[in-house]
Amino acid sequence: MNSFGRIFTLTSFGESHGAAIGGVVDGVPAGIALDISRIQHQLNRRRPGQSSITSSRDESDLVELLSGVYDGVTTGAPIGFIVKNQDVRSIDYEVIKNVYRPSHADYTYDVKYGIRDYRGGGRASARETVARIVAGSIAQQALSGCGITIHAYTSSIGNIALSRDYTRYDLNKIDSNPVRCPDPETAKAMESLIDSVKADGDTIGGIVTGVIKGVPAGLGEPVFDKLQARLASAMLSINAAKGFEYGMGFDGCANRGSEMNDAFTTDRATGKVTTVTNNSGGIQGGISVGTDIYFRVAFKPVATLQQVVETITKDGEPAAIQVNGRHDPCVVPRAVPVVEAMAAMTIFDMLLLNRAARI
Amino acid sequence: MNSFGRIFTLTSFGESHGAAIGGVVDGVPAGIALDISRIQHQLNRRRPGQSSITSSRDESDLVELLSGVYDGVTTGAPIGFIVKNQDVRSIDYEVIKNVYRPSHADYTYDVKYGIRDYRGGGRASARETVARIVAGSIAQQALSGCGITIHAYTSSIGNIALSRDYTRYDLNKIDSNPVRCPDPETAKAMESLIDSVKADGDTIGGIVTGVIKGVPAGLGEPVFDKLQARLASAMLSINAAKGFEYGMGFDGCANRGSEMNDAFTTDRATGKVTTVTNNSGGIQGGISVGTDIYFRVAFKPVATLQQVVETITKDGEPAAIQVNGRHDPCVVPRAVPVVEAMAAMTIFDMLLLNRAARI
Amino acid sequence: MNSFGRIFTLTSFGESHGAAIGGVVDGVPAGIALDISRIQHQLNRRRPGQSSITSSRDESDLVELLSGVYDGVTTGAPIGFIVKNQDVRSIDYEVIKNVYRPSHADYTYDVKYGIRDYRGGGRASARETVARIVAGSIAQQALSGCGITIHAYTSSIGNIALSRDYTRYDLNKIDSNPVRCPDPETAKAMESLIDSVKADGDTIGGIVTGVIKGVPAGLGEPVFDKLQARLASAMLSINAAKGFEYGMGFDGCANRGSEMNDAFTTDRATGKVTTVTNNSGGIQGGISVGTDIYFRVAFKPVATLQQVVETITKDGEPAAIQVNGRHDPCVVPRAVPVVEAMAAMTIFDMLLLNRAARI
Amino acid sequence: MNSFGRIFTLTSFGESHGAAIGGVVDGVPAGIALDISRIQHQLNRRRPGQSSITSSRDESDLVELLSGVYDGVTTGAPIGFIVKNQDVRSIDYEVIKNVYRPSHADYTYDVKYGIRDYRGGGRASARETVARIVAGSIAQQALSGCGITIHAYTSSIGNIALSRDYTRYDLNKIDSNPVRCPDPETAKAMESLIDSVKADGDTIGGIVTGVIKGVPAGLGEPVFDKLQARLASAMLSINAAKGFEYGMGFDGCANRGSEMNDAFTTDRATGKVTTVTNNSGGIQGGISVGTDIYFRVAFKPVATLQQVVETITKDGEPAAIQVNGRHDPCVVPRAVPVVEAMAAMTIFDMLLLNRAARI
Repeated sequence: MNSFGRIFTLTSFGESHGAAIGGVVDGVPAGIALDISRIQHQLNRRRPGQSSITSSRDESDLVELLSGVYDGVTTGAPIGFIVKNQDVRSIDYEVIKNVYRPSHADYTYDVKYGIRDYRGGGRASARETVARIVAGSIAQQALSGCGITIHAYTSSIGNIALSRDYTRYDLNKIDSNPVRCPDPETAKAMESLIDSVKADGDTIGGIVTGVIKGVPAGLGEPVFDKLQARLASAMLSINAAKGFEYGMGFDGCANRGSEMNDAFTTDRATGKVTTVTNNSGGIQGGISVGTDIYFRVAFKPVATLQQVVETITKDGEPAAIQVNGRHDPCVVPRAVPVVEAMAAMTIFDMLLLNRAARI
Repeated sequence: MNSFGRIFTLTSFGESHGAAIGGVVDGVPAGIALDISRIQHQLNRRRPGQSSITSSRDESDLVELLSGVYDGVTTGAPIGFIVKNQDVRSIDYEVIKNVYRPSHADYTYDVKYGIRDYRGGGRASARETVARIVAGSIAQQALSGCGITIHAYTSSIGNIALSRDYTRYDLNKIDSNPVRCPDPETAKAMESLIDSVKADGDTIGGIVTGVIKGVPAGLGEPVFDKLQARLASAMLSINAAKGFEYGMGFDGCANRGSEMNDAFTTDRATGKVTTVTNNSGGIQGGISVGTDIYFRVAFKPVATLQQVVETITKDGEPAAIQVNGRHDPCVVPRAVPVVEAMAAMTIFDMLLLNRAARI
Repeated sequence: MNSFGRIFTLTSFGESHGAAIGGVVDGVPAGIALDISRIQHQLNRRRPGQSSITSSRDESDLVELLSGVYDGVTTGAPIGFIVKNQDVRSIDYEVIKNVYRPSHADYTYDVKYGIRDYRGGGRASARETVARIVAGSIAQQALSGCGITIHAYTSSIGNIALSRDYTRYDLNKIDSNPVRCPDPETAKAMESLIDSVKADGDTIGGIVTGVIKGVPAGLGEPVFDKLQARLASAMLSINAAKGFEYGMGFDGCANRGSEMNDAFTTDRATGKVTTVTNNSGGIQGGISVGTDIYFRVAFKPVATLQQVVETITKDGEPAAIQVNGRHDPCVVPRAVPVVEAMAAMTIFDMLLLNRAARI
Repeated sequence: MNSFGRIFTLTSFGESHGAAIGGVVDGVPAGIALDISRIQHQLNRRRPGQSSITSSRDESDLVELLSGVYDGVTTGAPIGFIVKNQDVRSIDYEVIKNVYRPSHADYTYDVKYGIRDYRGGGRASARETVARIVAGSIAQQALSGCGITIHAYTSSIGNIALSRDYTRYDLNKIDSNPVRCPDPETAKAMESLIDSVKADGDTIGGIVTGVIKGVPAGLGEPVFDKLQARLASAMLSINAAKGFEYGMGFDGCANRGSEMNDAFTTDRATGKVTTVTNNSGGIQGGISVGTDIYFRVAFKPVATLQQVVETITKDGEPAAIQVNGRHDPCVVPRAVPVVEAMAAMTIFDMLLLNRAARI
C-alpha cells in the first residue's frame, strides 16, 4: 500500500514529525552511475524555506543512501535511504489533537485506523514526498543515460495561466524564478499573486505541466496499464492533486476527430515515423509514440490557512482553531520536482517492463 | 499487464475479431447473490447498435459464466467468463493491414510487439471493455448489498455541457435518452450534434461524470493508492480517455483555500460527521469521507472517421485510406457503463482491502 | 489468489464439474511460434483414462486458445483458453454433499467460504491442473527456443525408488511406460505395486524428480524470490504435494561442508565456468549457476479410497461413506507433466524478469 | 524482488558490510501493541557471538523503528527500521575480491549483475535475515494477540536426529541450550558434534522443525497460494535452505492412503471439528484445518570452511584461498528464529488476506 511501481519500485515510510522519512528503491538495474549531489539538488528544490513564497520550516533534508550502491554505481541490490527529520516542533500541533482540520486527512485517518499521529499530519503530510524525490532522481539519472529528459513547471497559479502549448517556453528557464514558471514575466505576476494571498492568510492553487522528451516508441501496456493510466495514478497520488490530463485533455474532448487526429509522417532528418501534430500527447493506444509526452496536473489550494477556522472536535462539538504551523501559501512551486519524480519513476518502470515484450 | 485490482481483480483477454472476449474475476468473496440478467443489462448498455448514434455493428454480447458461481451465489472461486464475438467481418480491415491509421494504436503496437493482429484493432479495440462490464457488474452487485450505488452519465458532448453540479440532475433519467444525459433537453441538443457530426463523416468527444453514493468513510490507502489515484488509473485505462478530475478538479485550482475548504459539521439527522460543502469530492488525504464521491472523465473524439484520411504505410510511404468499419460518431454514451464498471471495481477492491486496516 | 508468476503469469479458473477449466496466460512475449499439438500432447499425458493405473474418467481435454495467437505466433496479447468439461457425473457426488471426506478439502472450504461446490471437489480438484498444463506448455515452447529443456519423471512409488542421481537414467525413456519412470525394470515393479494397491481399494504415494537443462547462469532473485523459493512455491501448489528439495536436499544436510561444496572449474570444451560436482542442484545464492537444476517433489497417497471410510457429517455426526468416483490409485504418473509445467512457468518467468537486472 | 508478502509485507535492504540492514514493514494493521524488547530478543537469538558454536562476529544488532508506531501502538502506517552494521572488517574480504568461493553466490552475482559488492557476501550474506527477524517479530506479536504461537527448534544436526513427532518434546526447553534443541540430551550430542566439526575447520548441516499452534481453520488460498506453498516459498528463501516438507512429508509418500488419511472427529471438550491423527500437518486442500501446522526445513552445511580451498579466479585461473572471516560451523541454531520469523509473516499475511474471503 506504500509501494509504487512494478519492476522499479519505491516503498516509502515515515511521518512528518517522526525520526525520518525513508524508503527502499527496488528493481534498480545494476550498472547505473549515481550522483548523490543530483538527488540532493532535487531534494533542495522540494524543501521548504527556499523563498518567501514557501513554508519557513527549515529542513536541510540530507539524504543518506544505506545500500545498493558501491563505488558510485548501482549493484542491483535495493537502495535503502533515509532523510532525517530535523526541525520538528510537535508543540505546534497540540492544538489540533482533538479537532478535525477542514479538508485535511484528520477525520478520514481517525475513521480508517482508529488512531492518528496528529503531529504535522503524520503520514498524510506532504513531507512524505521527500521519499519520492529520492527514488525519482535515481530514475531520472537512469533515464538520462537513455536520452530521456523530464521537465515540469508551473503553468498556472489561480487565474494566471500560460498557454497549454509548452513548445512556446524555454524549459531551461524554469528555475530562474521561485515560482518555477518558464516565462519570467508571468512568473512575476504569479509571485505577486501568491504574496498577496499569503498576506490574507489564505492559499491558492494552480497547475503543473510535465514534458517528457526522448521516450522511445513502445512503452506502456495496452489495457489497464496504459502509459496514461500509470501517469495518472502517479500524479493523483501526490498530495493536493485534483486532476490529470494529457495531450489536449479536457479541452480536446470538445473538438471533432478531424481536428484532433495526428497525421503520421516520416521525419525527413531521421527517416523515423513521427506525427505532424501531437494532440495525442505522445501516447496512442496506451503506448508511447516516440513523440513528446506532455500532461497537466491540477493542485488545489493548501487547506491550512493562517486564519481562525470553524470546525468540530472528535466528539462532534463545534470548535474554532488557528494553526500556527509554517505552511505554504501555494504548494505548486514545490510540487514541480515531485511531478518530475513521479514521471521519472513511471517511465523508467515501463521501460524496464517493456524489455519482456518480445522474445 | 492485463490485470486490474489488488484483491478483487479482473484479468481480461480477447481481441476484437478473435473467438471471444473474456476474463477471470478473482478475489470475489463467497456469498454474493449474482443476478446474471443485471450483468447482461450492463452489457446491453455498452453494446453497439443501440441507436442511430452508435456503431451499427450488431453483437448480442451474451455473457457465459463458466465458474465460481453455484446456485446463483459466488463460491469464492474465480469467475471465468466469455462473450463470444459474432458479427466479425475481418474483410473490412484488409485495407489497414499495411497502413497506420492516425491516432490509433496501429503504429505503437507494431513497434512494441513487431507483430499486430490488425483485424478491428485487435487487443486495442474498445471491444475489450466488454470484459470490464462483466467484472464491474459483479462488483456493482456486491456494492449494492453494502448500500453503495454508482451512476455515470454524459455531462458534455462537444461544447454542449451540463453544470458540474451533479445534484441538479435526476440520476434516474440517465437512460431516458440514447445520449445518457440526465437532462432531457440537453440530451436532445447533444443528440442533434452527434447526428450532425456523423453526417459529416466526423466524430466528437465529450465528458462523463461519475457519482458514487453510500461509500463509508475510510476507503483508500494513504500514499500511492489514494482513492483518487486508483480511480484515475481506472478511468485513464479506458480507451479514448484523456483526463480525470474529482471534486472541483481543474476549476478548483484557480480558487483560494478559504473558498475550497469543506467545513466539518455534524449531520443533524444521523449524528454522523459530514461536511457543509463537498468541494473535495468525497475524498480527503486519499481516503473516503463518507460523502458523495464525484469525478469527471474526458473522452476524445473517436479517431476513425468516415472520410478519406492521409497517412503512411508500414514502409513510410504516403497513403490515403477510407475505413468502412461501423464506428461510433461519439463514444461517450457507450462509455457511460464502462465508467460505472471501472468505478465499481475500484471501490469494491478498496473496500475489501480496507478490511485489513485494523487488527 | 488464482494467479501464478510475476511477468509471465497464469490466472486460472474452473471447477471439476463446472462448464470448463480455463485461464489467461499473460505476459507472453510477442513472437513465440506456438504449436497447439504440443500443448495437447501435454494435456494427454495428464488426462485420466490413459491406462489401468489411472482414473477411468474419460475426458478428451481439448484445449481451445481464444486469443493472443495470430498465424501461429504469439502477439504479446494475453492468451485466453478453455478446456471444456465433458464426462461429468455429478450424481456420484451427492453422497458427499453433507459429509467431510478425510484428508480432502471439504471441511476447510466449508469453513473458509461458508459454501461449497461439492461436485467432484469443485475448485480443489486436481482437474484444475489442466490450466497449468496449458500455460506450462506455452512456457516450455518458449524455453525450447532458448535451449532450455525440462524433464520430470517418477523416481519412487511407495518404497520402490530410483537413485537420487538422475544422470544414471535415460530421460528419453520416461514415456516408455505408464508409470513414467525412466528405468524400465523399476517401472514394472512400480506398476505391479500400484496394481496391487488398487486391488485393495487403496492408494499409494511417491516422488517426482525434475531436471532442467540449459538454464543460463543468472536467473533468480537474491532474497525472497530465490530460484529455489519460486520452484518450491510452484511445486507445493500442486495438489497432494507434501515436500520439495533441490540438489542434495534433506540428505545433504547430514553431511559436512567439505563434502557438499562444489568446486569451480573451467569447462575445457567451452571455456565457461562450471562446477566439478553439482550438490547445489544448479543454484547458488538463489541464482542459477548454469549447471543442471534438479529437484524432487513428494506426493502423498490419494485421499479417496475405494473403501468404506468413517467420517463425520457437517453437523458433526458420525458417518460412513464409500465414494464411487473414478479415482487414481496413484497420482504420481499424472503429476509428472504438471511438475514440468510448473517448472517451465517458473523458469520462463525468471528469465523474463532477469532482463531488467542490468541497465 | 526484495519484498515478501501480499498484505503484510516486508521490503528489505542492506548488505553485510554496508551502513545498515533495514526494511519497511507495510500492511501492518493499526492497533497492535508492539513491544520493542521482544523484537530485540529475537534479534539477539539470531545474532552471532552467542556461544562457542556460532560465529564470533560481534554485532549488538540494535533495532531502531523509524515510523509507524505511536505511543507503543501501530498506526497503520508503514514501519521503517534500521539495524546498523557495526563490527565491519572489510579487510578480511580483500582475499576473495577476485576469486569465486565454492558454493557461494560470488559467481552467480557476477554473472547476473556484472558487478559485486564482495565484502562479506554483500546482499547474499545471511546477515540480511536481520530484517526478517524484525518483521517476523512484529507479525508474531500480532499473532499472539490472536492466540497463535510459533515455535521452531533444531531437530537434527548431521546424523543426530530427533523423532519427527514434535509432540514428544517440551517446546519450552528450546532455548535451554545453545543448539536450540528441546531435548537436552540430544542437544549435548549435537553440540559435541558441532565442536568437533569446528575443530576440523569444517561445517555441518541440519534440520529445523517448525510448529504453529492456534491457527484458525480457513487460512490459505486454494490454488497457487496454498498455505504450504507460501510456507515453502518462505522457508526456501532463507540462506542455505535446501528442502521443505510439512506433515508426514517425504516419508509419508511411501505409505498408503489408508495409513495416511486423517479421520475427522468432533472434539469432546470444544465440540469443534478436529482430526484423530494429523498426518496432513494441519493443512488440507491448501487451507488450514485448525489443528497444529508442522513442517521441517533442511539446511546445508555452511559453505565457508576454515581450510585452504581450491577454486578459480574471475579469469578462470586456478586459485587456493583461505577465508579468515568469523563464520559459523553450523548455521542451524541461528536459523531457528529466522524460521519462526518467516512462518509468522506467512501466517499473519494469510490471516489478513482471509478477511476478504466472504462478503
